[in-house]
Formats: sequence, C-alpha cells, structure tokens
Amino acid sequence: MRVCFLGDSFVNGTGDPEYLGWVGRLCGSARQTRPDLTSYNLGIRRETSRQLRQRWRQEVALRLPAEVEGRLVFSFGANDTTVENGRQRLATVDSLDHLRAILTEAKAGFPVLMIGAPAIADPEHTARIETLSHKMAIVCHSLSVPYLDTVSTLKRSEVWMQEVAAGDGAHPGAAGYAAFAELVENWAAWQAWVCQKAPTD
Amino acid sequence: MRVCFLGDSFVNGTGDPEYLGWVGRLCGSARQTRPDLTSYNLGIRRETSRQLRQRWRQEVALRLPAEVEGRLVFSFGANDTTVENGRQRLATVDSLDHLRAILTEAKAGFPVLMIGAPAIADPEHTARIETLSHKMAIVCHSLSVPYLDTVSTLKRSEVWMQEVAAGDGAHPGAAGYAAFAELVENWAAWQAWVCQKAPTD
Repeated sequence: MRVCFLGDSFVNGTGDPEYLGWVGRLCGSARQTRPDLTSYNLGIRRETSRQLRQRWRQEVALRLPAEVEGRLVFSFGANDTTVENGRQRLATVDSLDHLRAILTEAKAGFPVLMIGAPAIADPEHTARIETLSHKMAIVCHSLSVPYLDTVSTLKRSEVWMQEVAAGDGAHPGAAGYAAFAELVENWAAWQAWVCQKAPTD
Repeated sequence: MRVCFLGDSFVNGTGDPEYLGWVGRLCGSARQTRPDLTSYNLGIRRETSRQLRQRWRQEVALRLPAEVEGRLVFSFGANDTTVENGRQRLATVDSLDHLRAILTEAKAGFPVLMIGAPAIADPEHTARIETLSHKMAIVCHSLSVPYLDTVSTLKRSEVWMQEVAAGDGAHPGAAGYAAFAELVENWAAWQAWVCQKAPTD
C-alpha cells in the first residue's frame, strides 16, 4: 500500500526535531500490520487549498501508478484562514469549493481521507480554523469522504498548545506531533485501512 | 534553509520501519546547527533519471520560492541500471546525459549536491551501479557539483548488505539507512551546508 499525504506544513512535519511529524509517526505504527506501507509526504509550507488543487493530481500520478495499491490523505486549512493585510488568504466559500473539487476528483481514483487543520497559538486564528473545520466536515459528509476534526481536540491538548507556543506559534515539537498522530491512529477510518493484513504476493 | 531531496526509493526511505530513511536521519543530526532546516523528501520508487529530469523542476519550484534559502540534493542511479527484459532500463550514456542536464539547470538556481546510488544484493547489478557511479563522478567534477560515491563503501558495509539481503534485496532497514546517513553527515560538502549557524532573522 502506498499513501500520499497531501497538504501544508503540518503534513510536512515542520518544527519536529525528529523529522517525522504526525505522518512519520502514523506510518511507523501502521507498519506493524502493513509492513508494505510506503509513505509519500507531499506537505508544502504556506500552501493554501487553492495551490493544492492545482498540483496534487500531477504529484500523485507520478507516485501512484495503476499497478500499485494507492491511497490519499489530505490535510489543510490553517493557511487558508491566515489573515494577511487585513483579510483572510482565502474566503471560506473558496476553501470549501477547493475542498469539494479536490475530493470529488480524488475519490474517483483512490480511497481518500480528509483531516482538518490543528489549533495554533493565536486564539482568533484557531477560531477561524474551527469554523472552517465544521464546514469541511459537512462537505466531506456530503461526499462520503471520512473527515477527522483535530482542532477541537488539539486546542485542549496541553502538550500541543505548550509546544506550539514554545515554537513559532504554529508548529509543535515531537510530543505535539505524537499527539496529532495518535488522533489519526485511533480514527476508525484510518484503522480500516491498516488494521487488516496486507495481501501476500 | 529548505532542502529538497530528489531521487528514488532510497531517498524515500523505502523499507525503513522508522520511516526516516537516510534523509530523515541526516536532517535530525543537521538540526543541531540548523534548527531552521525544512526537509522536502521527493524520492519516488522505481524512478529513473529520465523521469526525474521531467519532474524535478516543477516540484522544486512549488517548494522553494525565491524568498527562502533553498538547496537541492539529488541521488539516483540504481533504477537506471536495472536489467529488464534483457537490457538496462537506461543506457549509461543516457543516464549521464540526464545527470548533466539536471545538474546544469539546477545549479543555475540553487546550491546542489549529488549522491550516488548504494549497493544492492545482486552483485552484477551492484557492479553496474559502481560503473555508473565512477562516470557520474566525472560529470559532476566537470560541472563543479560535489559528488559522493556511496556504492563502494556500502558494498563493504556488513550492516548495509545484511539488511538489504534480509529485506527485498534492494532496501535496508533502520541500521542500514543510518549507515548511509553517516556517509553524508561526514561528507565535507554537506558539512559546509550545515556546520555554520543559521543567520538570525
């Protein structure tokens, strides 16, 4: 099984001194049942859903040819809701449009999961992420794509919020990323992917 | 500093149960002097230099905008020298042409390093990798791009060869990737990138 993880700096694992992020930790634990798991980390710092919509298809096509068992995990939203020069980088309606377009096309070719953006240090920005996350959940539900909200849990996570505050205000360290990974590990939609043994060749 | 690592499954870290590969281990140790280091892992399984030549530019452009300190590390050669249906996937002259084209364009935009492919279990394939590695060194020298040969060291590395043999015949486990990472960590060209403190903002 080969999984492309697509999204932003949280997908990349920015700030993790161990260079695993939540993606690396998640894959390390999944390997116990899926030793055939190859991970392609396609997180890009500062990227919005508008930019992701333009590039995901081509990067995935190169990594998941038809003969492999390919799957996709998307995670974004924090950069869309950043305020720059007095306005949000993307209007919420546009973020949801990009989400819908990406997932509709993606699920036609692959099993797909969507994970919402986490909390950051700025409470106003976190509130905007939370609003977007609620709306993303509705879009995902309408498309039958499993959605995992992370912001409402992580904003109450001491280790996450402490590491984010001690870092650059957005990215945690190793323990914070471990907390994020644990949310995904315990998610039924992810478990359904990895909790059955790989087919033997 | 943001570094794109471009190449094949060894760059991806395929087979490492810790999902770090040599790239993750290298970055973890480099962070002691460069805590600002962001790693983009752009290794793709089975990819030859012909395919890499077609895609590296676009994937790098999205990750290294002009305002960041971007650098590139390339590593490939094992897939070029695979024999399929009685012939090498790429003729050596073509591999060297792709290498020259990639590095010439890359070094016009970024600091660039090139790392040769490692040894694998099949001694004939390893001999072909070694032949290519010697020729790649000459091309890199002519372009003033630092080149690191890994095959001649790793074919004599007990931990590397044992893990490759115990795995799928190509990819090692955690200790093998640690041995690969150590070669790069001790390379003067890499040390020149990371052994000076990051400029403070």
